Amino acid sequence: MSIKIAHVGVAVNSLQETLRFYHEVLQVQEKGITEVERDGVTVAFIGVGESNIELLEPLGPDTNVGKFLAKRGEGIHHLAIRVDNVAEAMARARKHGYQLIDPEPRPGAGGTTVAFIHPKSTSGVLMELVEGEPQH
Amino acid sequence: MSIKIAHVGVAVNSLQETLRFYHEVLQVQEKGITEVERDGVTVAFIGVGESNIELLEPLGPDTNVGKFLAKRGEGIHHLAIRVDNVAEAMARARKHGYQLIDPEPRPGAGGTTVAFIHPKSTSGVLMELVEGEPQH
Repeated sequence: MSIKIAHVGVAVNSLQETLRFYHEVLQVQEKGITEVERDGVTVAFIGVGESNIELLEPLGPDTNVGKFLAKRGEGIHHLAIRVDNVAEAMARARKHGYQLIDPEPRPGAGGTTVAFIHPKSTSGVLMELVEGEPQH
Repeated sequence: MSIKIAHVGVAVNSLQETLRFYHEVLQVQEKGITEVERDGVTVAFIGVGESNIELLEPLGPDTNVGKFLAKRGEGIHHLAIRVDNVAEAMARARKHGYQLIDPEPRPGAGGTTVAFIHPKSTSGVLMELVEGEPQH
């Protein structure tokens, strides 16, 4: 598997409100809507070519996305890049002095393996490395 | 042509600094670096699957990206979605009451036709509609 944009995560106040734009203007439908309790969000997955746009509605104000919305308002929350091997990419990041958020690869949505890199190391982009293709 | 993520635009202080991360961790190389005087930026195009990541370094503080950096700091600036027909997507947006930045489709990079939608209409995402495939 080669590199691609796995998804773009967008923090929103209301999935239903935001989905209207995707339906009415881009004419795309969500593949599904899933509550991911571990991450404190309800997620709508919208297929856009080989990538997804993930709309993230927080389960409450004390979640990561809830705090993001309170501080920054709605907008792009993170960029997920599919790589062949998350552990190897993390090792390269460590070797070159970049800052990781996750100390080890961890389970992500749909059976993937993921790790987040700190925005300080990626010019302000919260970047998620993703290994594998999610099964929704 | 079907919908896809055309590119993710990232505002950065220095292309050379930011490219280090893409080379060292993601092991991808830029296709090219081009100055786009009309938009006040120097752009590095990084191919990531069917999409690009476009790193945008401003030509000066009074450019759009220069002002974005002064106000928000480095980070994702816009999300570009390829659609079949920009004029038709704009007509749908108008019909449903969404706010456009460009009143008409206009020439974009590499021979494409583009229009920007206001972030107020897209949950805080500055969204560019792109028709055609850019020739770099």
